Parts: sequence; structure tokens; C-alpha cells
Amino acid sequence: MPELRKDPIIGRWIIISKERGKRPTDFIVEKNPSKGGFCPLCPGNEKTTPPEVLSYGRSAQKANQPGWSLRVVPNKYPALVIEGDLGKEGEGLYDKMNGIGAHEVIIETPNHDEAFTDLSHERMIEVFWAYRDRLRDLSNDPRFRYVMVFKNYGSAAGASLEHSHSQLVALPILPRMIVSELEGSLSYYKYKERCVFCDIIRQEIDQDVRVVIQNDHFITITPYAPRSPFEMWVLPTKHSSCYTAMDDDQFHSLTSIFAETMTRLDKCLPGVPYNFVLHTSPLRAQPLEHFHWHFEIMPKLTSIAGFEWGSGFYINPTPPEDAAKYLKEIKL
Amino acid sequence: MPELRKDPIIGRWIIISKERGKRPTDFIVEKNPSKGGFCPLCPGNEKTTPPEVLSYGRSAQKANQPGWSLRVVPNKYPALVIEGDLGKEGEGLYDKMNGIGAHEVIIETPNHDEAFTDLSHERMIEVFWAYRDRLRDLSNDPRFRYVMVFKNYGSAAGASLEHSHSQLVALPILPRMIVSELEGSLSYYKYKERCVFCDIIRQEIDQDVRVVIQNDHFITITPYAPRSPFEMWVLPTKHSSCYTAMDDDQFHSLTSIFAETMTRLDKCLPGVPYNFVLHTSPLRAQPLEHFHWHFEIMPKLTSIAGFEWGSGFYINPTPPEDAAKYLKEIKL
Repeated sequence: MPELRKDPIIGRWIIISKERGKRPTDFIVEKNPSKGGFCPLCPGNEKTTPPEVLSYGRSAQKANQPGWSLRVVPNKYPALVIEGDLGKEGEGLYDKMNGIGAHEVIIETPNHDEAFTDLSHERMIEVFWAYRDRLRDLSNDPRFRYVMVFKNYGSAAGASLEHSHSQLVALPILPRMIVSELEGSLSYYKYKERCVFCDIIRQEIDQDVRVVIQNDHFITITPYAPRSPFEMWVLPTKHSSCYTAMDDDQFHSLTSIFAETMTRLDKCLPGVPYNFVLHTSPLRAQPLEHFHWHFEIMPKLTSIAGFEWGSGFYINPTPPEDAAKYLKEIKL
Repeated sequence: MPELRKDPIIGRWIIISKERGKRPTDFIVEKNPSKGGFCPLCPGNEKTTPPEVLSYGRSAQKANQPGWSLRVVPNKYPALVIEGDLGKEGEGLYDKMNGIGAHEVIIETPNHDEAFTDLSHERMIEVFWAYRDRLRDLSNDPRFRYVMVFKNYGSAAGASLEHSHSQLVALPILPRMIVSELEGSLSYYKYKERCVFCDIIRQEIDQDVRVVIQNDHFITITPYAPRSPFEMWVLPTKHSSCYTAMDDDQFHSLTSIFAETMTRLDKCLPGVPYNFVLHTSPLRAQPLEHFHWHFEIMPKLTSIAGFEWGSGFYINPTPPEDAAKYLKEIKL
């Protein structure tokens, strides 16, 4: 059973994933996701993954068979396990609980060679629907407090399979970054009676130096104080704290802006590894006046991350105004 | 002039280093520090670095000439600049100030091929003295609030030069990680009237499952909730909030335990890239009952850091109890 442990000084929770237990000799040199060979995410190989929890594009009678356009399966090597109770306990001054949670893989396309930026509008919108459907389903489990949805692209960003996919992790705790955003935005709200993200959007549209693109419901900006070069945020222009509250029209709008954002990034920095992470309100939260859901996209360009990761102190060689300009100037 | 900018949501400060300004085409594939060729840190090349601010081993009359055993010079490509005033100002809802600070390189040995773990006791203690002497000197500048001392080893950890060196950055703000530790340890102190680090040390000695080594004044542990496999902390066993308060005996003791700690790490995971960072009290702070200075050593073994870096949510495949056991069992 994996274990969730809390740092007693700063309160950060981490997962000790014993099942993935690594001895010194298990740490091998970083390599690219294997090209060619057997792919467990490809159609025809459905039996090699745990049974699917969601699929689109074919009837439910034919579960775990080809014919799907998108498929969600539990991770075969999960960081957390779904069965069991939380078992919260202390160990002297330390706090821990069982590593209960869900860890799922969203297979974004049946085509092995189709990259995220190659997906058609019809295919990419299914990815965003799948995030919503899994968030809704997992919110029914009272043990879970948060679902972290993310995508790693490229081995330098942590991807171990080539076939285009994203992941989600349902957690019995709130991750530290979300706690910081909830607390920080609440303290701004108490002072100003306004959402800090809404204020940011207003100022960004007004200044127009960090806006990459905007459409009817969304805006992509390079944030004012970015941790990494070419970091981008995609936000709904109208206030909303919860991803799953989007209507049909908004899903189409999100898909369009996301596709264009990632295409611009890829044309600007061909093949760049990246992570994107969905920041939304905790499961079962009422609509929040102070918090604003969004995606954060972080290209992995600098190798200095190790130190910055340890110190919380970031040096960024590319002003976000320059990054926005390069991204806007890309010819599509 | 570089710029310090604050994230308006979570309050994190970052540096925009325009002088290092990078266009998309400047981001090249990560590579190992160049082997052979010209080294600006080698004896004989003193004129190619900015004039030294500290040296050991030869008379001051011969500054910037060979004969030194350790040398500290300003970084030729600094992330922050030393001249100017802070120029704090707002930009709508955003906050910024000039990128005032010091960025220095501690050249740990005149021998190009001597790795940190090869340093003799006499040479390594000079590194720790240099940290103290620069901390003391920089604390006289009222613009600075914190000095971050760190070492990057290996290109994956951000090192761009092969010649053994560490770095320091003097800052007009407190880095986020230090703020978190100061606040977290203060809140523990208010509740318990004890230093959380002292309590950790007591429990670690008592449980004896995460202690790597201990000597007369120091202890090396693998922390209970480590972010990365084989993360280690080196702490003084007796309470002290400030690195510069160490006496002679303690410097010798620190040097011994640090040398053995890094040798054990290197024998366990040969050539592993790592970062270490000194966590000490803010400049000019009175002795603090709640904060305890220490080093954090973070090997860079997992490539998944990108996502974790963005979410504050870490998955660690190696329990610290296992890591401590492997490190202890190494034959020296």
C-alpha cells in the first residue's frame, strides 16, 4: 500500500509509492519514450490495460474492445490505490495516511502516431469532456478531496509512453499548490471583494502585452511572474471556479483556444517537452467567488529547475512580454 | 536591469533576467558541461572573471593571480546586479522591483579535475568558511534580506561549468521556501514551545530508521516526507538558527559529515546529479527559537519533476527508510 506523508514543517504532502519501490540500481539514465514496439494504449491491446472506466465512440457492450475514439483506464502502475480506507494516523510528530486514490490514463486517440497538436476539433473536445466526466464521477467518492488532471509530453517532462495521453490522480488531500492558490485568492478577495484572476484578465486585456490569444469565452496569457520561459495560462474570461460547470459552447471555445495555444507553442519551440495542469476547485465545493479555474502550461526548457524546485526561487531568462510576442507572431 | 516580479495570487517572487534574454532559438538541447577546452575558473585565467571578492591561500597583494586555494568571484552572467536602488513599484495590480542583488561563484579548488567528493578536509572546510565569510559580508548591505547558498552538480541539476564550484545569490526578498519554513516552524513553536527541527532530530535518533550518519555536532537524515529519492538533510544536533554562528569545532564536524554524506551518495548512485541548498535565518535576524539551520541535498533522479514542480505534489518511489539503509550500508 502506498503511503501519504506530511512534511511536519511546511505541511506538504507527498506520496511514497512503495510498489514502484526503487533501489539505487533501478535509476537508469533518462531516455526517450520507446519508439515502435508494443504499445498498451493502441486498439487491439485493450486486454493489456486494467478494464476501462470510460470510453467514447462505441457501444458499452463492446467495452475493452477496439472501436473507441477515446478511452480512460486505471494506470497499470498506480501511484495510489483505489481500495481501502484512509487509515489516518500519527507516527510520533509525523502524520500519514494510506495512499488511497485513483490514478487513471486518458488515451486521447486510437492513432498511435497522432500527437496532441494533431487532434481534430472533434477528437480534442472529447479529451476535455473526459476530464469533466471523470471529475464528476470521482466526486461521488467521499474519500477524495481533489482530482489533479495533467499531461506530460516528452520524456524530459515525465512521459513514459509515446501514445498521446493525459492522466488524472484523485487525492484524499488538497495539493499544496491548490491550497496556496485558494488561500492567496481568498485573502485578495477579502481585501478587494474581487476575484484576483478576474482582475488579472481585465488588466491583461487592457495592457495587451502578455495576451497570446483570446476567443469568445477564453484567454491565453503569459503570466506576469512566470516560473519558466513560455509558461502560459488558459483562463475562462467569465468568472467560474469549477471546470465541470462549463456548457457546450464553452467546451468548444476551450478546445479551439487550447488547440491554437499548443500549436503556437509547438511551432515556436518545435517538439518542446511540456506539462499542463488543470487548476479547479476542490471536489464538491460550492461555487467560489474568489477562485477561478484555469490551465497552466509549463514548457520544460531550462535544466536549472532542480535548484529552483528545492528553493522556490525561480530565474527566468525570457520576459513573458517577449514570449507572448513570439507566440503571437507565429504564422499558422 | 533584471526585474523581480511577484505572482499576485500566491505571492511567489521570481527574477526576470533580461540580460540573459532568450529567444526561442536560443533554447538548445541540454548537454553536459563541456569537457576540456578553456576554463575560466582555472588558475592562470583569473583575469577572465570579474575581480575576486574573497580568496584563501595567498596574500591579498596578489589578488587575481594564481596561488589561491579557494576564490570567490562575481558571476560573469549574473541573474541580479549589485548597483542601484530597489525601485519598488506597482504596475496595476502587479508588484515589481529592480533586480538588485549579488550573484557569486565560489571556486572550491584550483584543480580543474578535483570533484567535490575528492576535496581534502582542509580544502572542503574552506568552502564552508567561504559561505560564512560571504554571508557576513553581504549582511552589511541593508538592501539584502537573504543569501541563498547552493551547489548544482551535473548538467541535469543545472551546472554549466565542470570545474567544482558553488554559488550564492543575495536577495532583497525572502525566497518562498524560506518563508514557508519560517512560518511553519513558528506555528509549531507557538503550539508546542519547541523547535520542530529539534523534535525531528530527537525522534529520528530514537527511531533510528532514517539516520544516515551522525557525529559529534551533526546528523544526516533522509527526511520523513522527501520530495525526491535519496533526499537528505544535514542538521546541527544542537539548536541554532544561523549558519554563521558556528564555532571552529563545529566547522570541522560539518566538513566531516558533509564529506562522508556526499561520498556515500556518490558511491550509492555513481555520478548522480544533485543540488544542495543552505537554509539559514534571514540576514541580521536575531537568534530564532523556532528555526533551525540546515542543508538540504536533493539528487536529481526522476524526470517527473516537471509536473510535480507545477503542482506541488510529489510522488517518490523510494521510501526514505530504504534510502537510509542503502546509504548506511555503503562500504567506504
